[in-house]
Amino acid sequence: MARIVMKFGGTSVGDIDRIKNVARRVKREVEAGNQVAVVVSAMSGVTNQLVDWCKQMAPLHDQREYDAVVATGEQVTSGLLAIGLQELGLDARSWSGWQVPIRTDDVHGKARIDSIDTSEMIAGMERGQVAVVAGFQGIAPGNRVATLGRGGSDTSAVALAAALHADRCDIYTDVDGVYTTDPRIVTKAKKLDKITYEEMLELASVGAKVLQTRSVEMAMKHHVRVQVLSSFEDKPGTLVCDEDEIVEKELLSGIAYSRDEAKITLVKVADRPGVAAAIFGPLADNAVNVDMIVQNVSEDGKSTDLTFTVGKADLERAKKVIEDNKATLAYEGLIADSNVVKVSVIGVGMRSHAGIAQKMFQTLAAEGINIQVISTSEIKISVLIEEKYTELALRALHTAYGLDAA
Amino acid sequence: MARIVMKFGGTSVGDIDRIKNVARRVKREVEAGNQVAVVVSAMSGVTNQLVDWCKQMAPLHDQREYDAVVATGEQVTSGLLAIGLQELGLDARSWSGWQVPIRTDDVHGKARIDSIDTSEMIAGMERGQVAVVAGFQGIAPGNRVATLGRGGSDTSAVALAAALHADRCDIYTDVDGVYTTDPRIVTKAKKLDKITYEEMLELASVGAKVLQTRSVEMAMKHHVRVQVLSSFEDKPGTLVCDEDEIVEKELLSGIAYSRDEAKITLVKVADRPGVAAAIFGPLADNAVNVDMIVQNVSEDGKSTDLTFTVGKADLERAKKVIEDNKATLAYEGLIADSNVVKVSVIGVGMRSHAGIAQKMFQTLAAEGINIQVISTSEIKISVLIEEKYTELALRALHTAYGLDAA
Repeated sequence: MARIVMKFGGTSVGDIDRIKNVARRVKREVEAGNQVAVVVSAMSGVTNQLVDWCKQMAPLHDQREYDAVVATGEQVTSGLLAIGLQELGLDARSWSGWQVPIRTDDVHGKARIDSIDTSEMIAGMERGQVAVVAGFQGIAPGNRVATLGRGGSDTSAVALAAALHADRCDIYTDVDGVYTTDPRIVTKAKKLDKITYEEMLELASVGAKVLQTRSVEMAMKHHVRVQVLSSFEDKPGTLVCDEDEIVEKELLSGIAYSRDEAKITLVKVADRPGVAAAIFGPLADNAVNVDMIVQNVSEDGKSTDLTFTVGKADLERAKKVIEDNKATLAYEGLIADSNVVKVSVIGVGMRSHAGIAQKMFQTLAAEGINIQVISTSEIKISVLIEEKYTELALRALHTAYGLDAA
Repeated sequence: MARIVMKFGGTSVGDIDRIKNVARRVKREVEAGNQVAVVVSAMSGVTNQLVDWCKQMAPLHDQREYDAVVATGEQVTSGLLAIGLQELGLDARSWSGWQVPIRTDDVHGKARIDSIDTSEMIAGMERGQVAVVAGFQGIAPGNRVATLGRGGSDTSAVALAAALHADRCDIYTDVDGVYTTDPRIVTKAKKLDKITYEEMLELASVGAKVLQTRSVEMAMKHHVRVQVLSSFEDKPGTLVCDEDEIVEKELLSGIAYSRDEAKITLVKVADRPGVAAAIFGPLADNAVNVDMIVQNVSEDGKSTDLTFTVGKADLERAKKVIEDNKATLAYEGLIADSNVVKVSVIGVGMRSHAGIAQKMFQTLAAEGINIQVISTSEIKISVLIEEKYTELALRALHTAYGLDAA
């Protein structure tokens, strides 16, 4: 007998028929002899409606009241699913965040889970009762409802799995697993059976939006085995787990891309100590996240070109911050380019294998694709290229690294 | 400075613009120097949607889960109104039933309020904070959300007013007060400035659906002064209060009618002790409420005709119960008639004035309207007449008792 947490997202519980479908899915796990806790999101569309109402009341609303309003979406789903499970003859009850309780800090709208008191829930599960938990929420100091931020139901599920010492946390979603790359672009993309937490984090952060980054970090910290699988098809998904659980490691686990990038080049910046701090300090102060940075070697010993990337949505703000500081920064020109894409190859295997970067550069060169910026981490190599080459680059790299499905 | 409770029903908070309107209304009371608690219903339509979802999941659903789902409607409104009040520069916060807490019994779906802990709320109100309370709900033993049944927000408001020792409980609704009779039928109907609890109870129970009966009973018990007024117009409504607060008492306060009546006549029932119990016992066992009862004097000493009324919705069930018991009851025939209306004149003045009933009978006779059944209470005389005479009877009685507006 295993103890498992099952999590169903907004599209999986999008209407009454789908909630009934989820109930049947949960029943199968119970009948297989498992203790089951289910975490649910709001029915798709419901959260947007609630958020929209808050915005209509006031553009800058009290985050505590926003949380009180928006958290009701998941409470509705949890009650409805409990009814659906009972209708199938199971013992079940719903739990709002405050009922468990799931205690959070007081950063309303983006709260972090401090602790989960599972004693009453476990007592029920040991009697065969299915716990249906409203995701995305908890109770903050002062007895106020707090939400965990968009996608927070994944975090709820992983945190609950950790607190329950669950054998597995199954995240049901509208895709059937994690792929080597975007299957809409590369038809030969393969579904991965297993992937490490580290790789999943890199994939998630560069644009493969399968699991929320925070939930993967939490799973890694607490060694929660997370399975991503489809709520509409009946087949195994992808298991996110510790590296030592993966016997046959591939060199690469996947190739990700992000179109949410913009490039800024400062022409002829003074080449002297402290200039980087002078540029990136004001950007950080204005909540602009800078990702890749490259600084050319100074040719004349006096000035250099500095290139970096920011999120596309931050581009205008970034330009304004820099132009406002032009006097201090003493650069000659600013070139902004949002016509770029970041392509990353990811794999824990590259720790022990040389030549991975070399193969990337050669493959792109063979296709005539110019690399504008490069950045690397222990398990990732990212390049910035012109956006129109996105598909070409992904397909060429996928083939070059031997990831194509047979 | 006064402490007041304001309650807004579903149509008064039916959309975002109306909630903003409510916020302005509340602001005026705060600026007049009052301590204010507001009780809100769900936005109109929201509760029906939630109820419908529960029914779609399972026709016979767990009432506790139903409560968890349906109570979210009021929680949404309370959060939105708190945002709206803050946007107007007021200090405000929302309170779910469990946050106050409003403690109820465990009769989910129709829970009764046991106690309200107002200490934290009063502390806030004394600092100038408006308390925005989700109506219709509380927390039952076992930490589960319980609802008070349809229309329960009126009861929430009156109970809160009692617990807060409020000077007044203003119930904002889509009518501007309590009228001497239905103004859609009698154009000369007058709005009452004041009415006693007892009269309001009689009016409410015979069809003038302005206030929920339970809320009036509770107001009477705790001497809560309740004002019914329009949320769309800016003028005083009707105050429901103790008799001794009404200086100039009218003989009658109003004339009510109910079309939700059906008449059953059992022909030639055996005239012997115990026969009434034999008939009304099985009806009560089958949850059929019997209202008016009249038994003719037996002419032959052996049998009599027995006539009584039931709710229209209960007529078929009542007939079946009686026919199933025909052997025991020994009657010759059953005549059912749903083509009837109950008209009632109501007033505490009739305690000390004779001739009120006589005037009713004379007035109806003068219009050629036959009275089928009569019943009386200390402050009410009701007659059952053919339904087609409803308007004629109401107008004639309204004039005869001198209630017509000048």
